[in-house]
Amino acid sequence: MDNETEKISILKLTEKGSSSIEDVVAKEFPLIIILNNHELVTLLCSPANLKYLAVGFLFSEGFLKSKDEIKKIMVDDRRGVVWVETKKGEEPADDVLFERFITSGCGRGTSFHSAADAQGQGKVESQIKISALEVLALVSEFQHRSQIYRATGGVHSAALCDNKDILVFSEDIGRHNAIDKIFGECILNDIATDDHIIITSGRVTSEILFKVARRNVSIIVSKSAPTNLGVRLANDLGVTLVGFVRGKRMNVYTHAWRITIDGK
Amino acid sequence: MDNETEKISILKLTEKGSSSIEDVVAKEFPLIIILNNHELVTLLCSPANLKYLAVGFLFSEGFLKSKDEIKKIMVDDRRGVVWVETKKGEEPADDVLFERFITSGCGRGTSFHSAADAQGQGKVESQIKISALEVLALVSEFQHRSQIYRATGGVHSAALCDNKDILVFSEDIGRHNAIDKIFGECILNDIATDDHIIITSGRVTSEILFKVARRNVSIIVSKSAPTNLGVRLANDLGVTLVGFVRGKRMNVYTHAWRITIDGK
Repeated sequence: MDNETEKISILKLTEKGSSSIEDVVAKEFPLIIILNNHELVTLLCSPANLKYLAVGFLFSEGFLKSKDEIKKIMVDDRRGVVWVETKKGEEPADDVLFERFITSGCGRGTSFHSAADAQGQGKVESQIKISALEVLALVSEFQHRSQIYRATGGVHSAALCDNKDILVFSEDIGRHNAIDKIFGECILNDIATDDHIIITSGRVTSEILFKVARRNVSIIVSKSAPTNLGVRLANDLGVTLVGFVRGKRMNVYTHAWRITIDGK
Repeated sequence: MDNETEKISILKLTEKGSSSIEDVVAKEFPLIIILNNHELVTLLCSPANLKYLAVGFLFSEGFLKSKDEIKKIMVDDRRGVVWVETKKGEEPADDVLFERFITSGCGRGTSFHSAADAQGQGKVESQIKISALEVLALVSEFQHRSQIYRATGGVHSAALCDNKDILVFSEDIGRHNAIDKIFGECILNDIATDDHIIITSGRVTSEILFKVARRNVSIIVSKSAPTNLGVRLANDLGVTLVGFVRGKRMNVYTHAWRITIDGK
């Protein structure tokens, strides 16, 4: 966590007056991703798990489909560069870079999506279920784990879970990055995402839905709001979308059959 | 506001049980910006004030420097396309599109920035001051105006203010978009931004600082956290950065001389 925050001096104003204090803010770090010698993108991110972020990003954006395609990954933490080489060694097509979405909601703009992606993305068929009490317990643990958020108020968190435990956890200044770091770690360490649950602190927009459906995740749980496209895509892609998990309450937007009411 | 939200049926779970209710979510809408017949980008945004968003984006990203450069703007609200033609009619250079940042924090990824931008951006020299009580009053009014946020919890707000009043206000699913809509409106309607204040609901990252400094705004006030690069840029660019304005408290991160303590 120390590497991801910075101490600075600020002036704090309250009803009682002003005082100079030391405060902690989240670090923001530019990471360049180079795919087969082609500089693809610069992400602004939290400076940890850069390899996971790069790999997660390349999968989320459709540049990689399988771990077997990767020949080599090199990371320069200091300069903020990740080089990824594939066995085929193909440079990404120029038009992939031009026809892109820049996002919206709280998070880096995913890019590169087109309507075709939506049509090409199959439905998530998982039959797993989770009880409402299990959702509340996981979100409670999720908040407990969000150390950088508690210190700075300036980052998002994401987690991969089964019904009982958080398996992979990440924090990043971008809500997209936090989820890409999760998926990058899962891909490189052969952690299954099928039949699992993603928790996010961030809002659930269309791009987030594409991301989780690509990894065959059937349940996404958020502390925040979804957009109408997030809801529509969750419905179409067979994903259970739970939002506004706060206190003992939650909203189930789509495929509510996967959320069971305890004792019933 | 009706055009920017959608009613949907959801399942609400509370300690008392489950109920099917009608809920309101923010709309997410893809907007294509075409500059001189060149499809530049697709932004995911709230479907209002598309012309302001397109113009604000083009200025923020450095594609336009002056209103006088604009020859014609056409908007297709239904299909989500804004065409902007300049008098020179030049297509944007390909490499502008390649060397880009995709963001991070809560909001669309601004793109296209390079270190050179930072060096090219002059310091904001404005001598205006604002009292802490005026900041609190403005933020209180700002929250009152955030109708779509109150209905959905799923959007960001931004405002241009003088010391006493909100002059321009916008809401959007993206924190970058909300600010670009403000600046687009100011540019097209000849509303001065020099010696004014920007309020945002979102986190203050490096990109937000570039945006406000480009419009010569000397004070940015946020309800949320800044990143370390946001603070560093604010310091370097001569911008007063106020964060975490909540209740009667606030943190002043940079150039605190512009914030006066009332009665002193």
